[in-house]
Amino acid sequence: MNNSVKEICIAARNASLSLAQWSTEYKNKFLMAAAQGLRSAAQDVLDANARDMELAQSSRPQLLDRLKLTPSRIEDMAKGMEDVAQLPDPVGEVIERFTRPNGLEIERVRVPLGVVGIIYEARPNVTADTIALCVKSGNSVVLRGSGDAAYSNRAIVSAIKAGLTAEGFDTECIQLLDDSGREGAEQLMRMNGYLDVLIPRGGAGLIASVVQNSTVPVIETGTGNCHVYVEGSADFDMATAIVLNSKVQRPSVCNAAESLLVDLSIAQEYLPLAIGALRQSGIVVKGCDRTCAIDPSCDRATDEDYAAEFLSCVISVKVVENLTEAIAHINKFGTRHSECIVTADADAAQTFLNAVDAAAVYVNASTRFTDGGQFGYGAELGISTQKLHARGPIGLRELTTYKYLVRGTGQVRE
Amino acid sequence: MNNSVKEICIAARNASLSLAQWSTEYKNKFLMAAAQGLRSAAQDVLDANARDMELAQSSRPQLLDRLKLTPSRIEDMAKGMEDVAQLPDPVGEVIERFTRPNGLEIERVRVPLGVVGIIYEARPNVTADTIALCVKSGNSVVLRGSGDAAYSNRAIVSAIKAGLTAEGFDTECIQLLDDSGREGAEQLMRMNGYLDVLIPRGGAGLIASVVQNSTVPVIETGTGNCHVYVEGSADFDMATAIVLNSKVQRPSVCNAAESLLVDLSIAQEYLPLAIGALRQSGIVVKGCDRTCAIDPSCDRATDEDYAAEFLSCVISVKVVENLTEAIAHINKFGTRHSECIVTADADAAQTFLNAVDAAAVYVNASTRFTDGGQFGYGAELGISTQKLHARGPIGLRELTTYKYLVRGTGQVRE
Repeated sequence: MNNSVKEICIAARNASLSLAQWSTEYKNKFLMAAAQGLRSAAQDVLDANARDMELAQSSRPQLLDRLKLTPSRIEDMAKGMEDVAQLPDPVGEVIERFTRPNGLEIERVRVPLGVVGIIYEARPNVTADTIALCVKSGNSVVLRGSGDAAYSNRAIVSAIKAGLTAEGFDTECIQLLDDSGREGAEQLMRMNGYLDVLIPRGGAGLIASVVQNSTVPVIETGTGNCHVYVEGSADFDMATAIVLNSKVQRPSVCNAAESLLVDLSIAQEYLPLAIGALRQSGIVVKGCDRTCAIDPSCDRATDEDYAAEFLSCVISVKVVENLTEAIAHINKFGTRHSECIVTADADAAQTFLNAVDAAAVYVNASTRFTDGGQFGYGAELGISTQKLHARGPIGLRELTTYKYLVRGTGQVRE
Repeated sequence: MNNSVKEICIAARNASLSLAQWSTEYKNKFLMAAAQGLRSAAQDVLDANARDMELAQSSRPQLLDRLKLTPSRIEDMAKGMEDVAQLPDPVGEVIERFTRPNGLEIERVRVPLGVVGIIYEARPNVTADTIALCVKSGNSVVLRGSGDAAYSNRAIVSAIKAGLTAEGFDTECIQLLDDSGREGAEQLMRMNGYLDVLIPRGGAGLIASVVQNSTVPVIETGTGNCHVYVEGSADFDMATAIVLNSKVQRPSVCNAAESLLVDLSIAQEYLPLAIGALRQSGIVVKGCDRTCAIDPSCDRATDEDYAAEFLSCVISVKVVENLTEAIAHINKFGTRHSECIVTADADAAQTFLNAVDAAAVYVNASTRFTDGGQFGYGAELGISTQKLHARGPIGLRELTTYKYLVRGTGQVRE
């Protein structure tokens, strides 16, 4: 057992007890000071980042784009912390209030989770985003970034802590688990009693590893195998605009579409339009037998393709008999993230909304809207595809729990 | 891999997709038919239970009390299912509804979790309770009871299914994992993608094992190391009534008190009253140095005692300097279940409510009220002491999640 992991978690937990009592104003000032610290030490952060970049250059060149910081990216991080300060504070909200026949007054009140752990990959901006969201929601945070970003993360946390210390804030609620290797991450996953939740942010491999190994409760930020289903009554122009936006606007993100379903009744007429538009945007199309019969230049799609989250310029296409088959296909292959029907038929829309099992179900809108900012919640820690606790965008509210406050006048149980 | 575990989970998942669409009326009729099935086959259930009792007689006599069924206990089970039918249906509730500036209409709607797994000990009544709560909240259920109650559980499920089949209901949403041994339970804990949540119901050992080994998200139904803190301004009669009720009324349950804290300013005067009343009710008192100085016949309490959930006629007592020390002691030793302050000071009460980290925090009322029925929620699956998803009583609402329904008119993301 690496003692430092446990010590770090104990420090975070102790700090969480007073942090939970901080006023909104105090937390906002904390975030403003943190942002200012980041700005003031921007050059130190850039220097540290240059060391990470140099190490990655030879061994992991595919990381360079995510890893790289620039003056403008650092300003974005600072601005992001200030933006979170402007968001409404979820802590203290009275969710419900009622009086029992025996006179007990019961309130269910929103409170912080306590200590939030984050395991993430080599994106240094996640460090600042996560600190802001956790502190605003009243939580201590234990950050476990990638070794590939170790110098950058250390510099970012130092800069933020320097800004906080200068303004007289206690910084123990921010803990960076550094130089701990794989073993450190595994210990973090077993810090039950100290960590209240662990959130993996990154690719499918990282998420699966945390889900498999963590005994601390996890919020799974999920992969998105999202579908656009063009129902028989759909307006073709609207359908194509939604298909293109869902697939092409940013193919590498989890709310991008990976699969197009088209009703048999319109396939002969609509599929050539859709496939043409997708190809014009540089998308490779893989289709079922019927799709390939209509467009013989399509590659054949396998069940693996239908299950795949490509995150790239590839789409799978399937012709379905009807709404029922479309729903069954989505519930079989989807990852319960974001699913869309394009239709002019209100009954079909309602059936799809009811029967599709996903965090967000769309009628006549792009799947790309599944996002905390787009929903009006402000920043987010990711999109949850599990059903426990949080589903969809993980914003400030999703970083809280509740407690029951019960006021009596001496009541005892019969 | 025992195929039957996976097959059972797949059957439960397939059934959950249509069950999620059932109307409240249909689910209520389902539960009435299930209750009727149980009544009609009461003799079969009693015969099966007699076999379990006979097997337990020699090997596990301590189980007999929990295991035993009588005609009146079976009637209670049937009545319990009918009571759940009368509770309000949580599914379909619109939790929030808003329109974005781009015209997207977003609703957050309560939906079933999908498939709920339960691992429980040798209390056959849990079988019927769990079926009722899961089906009413729109979930399939996979039951994994104790081998010690195998005949009883099988007979209960058969009776319920016979009643359902007679009325034309599909029974695939109820799955009993039978004869699977330890290996079966371990497989169940890894059925990610089929099970949406796993709930252990039973003692601390069972709960710890599920938390340690499950990759499926868990709702931890917790142990309760609950405190009653008698603050300096407390009315002594009220304090003693609450201490006695919390400790004595039913010492073996999780919301019973295990520890009494008393302010130094009143210890000399109040402790003899409290200890006298506790002893008169047959409670053994273990105290700190100051307690033992006031009452030398007390046993000395160790830190292990302060951390213990006795679940029996023992209480630990500690004299604290003030409110701050009481809160620190509770946040250190408590299990975040139910905590009480007895006080006449409104400021002390508010500080305690704010600072104590527990599912339910009481002012001037017994800890024994932490209960779905006492809170007015009807039946419950246990008390959650984790912070993710559900905290406090796990009733019908806590067996649901939500999804976002988004209605557009062709919106795409810029």
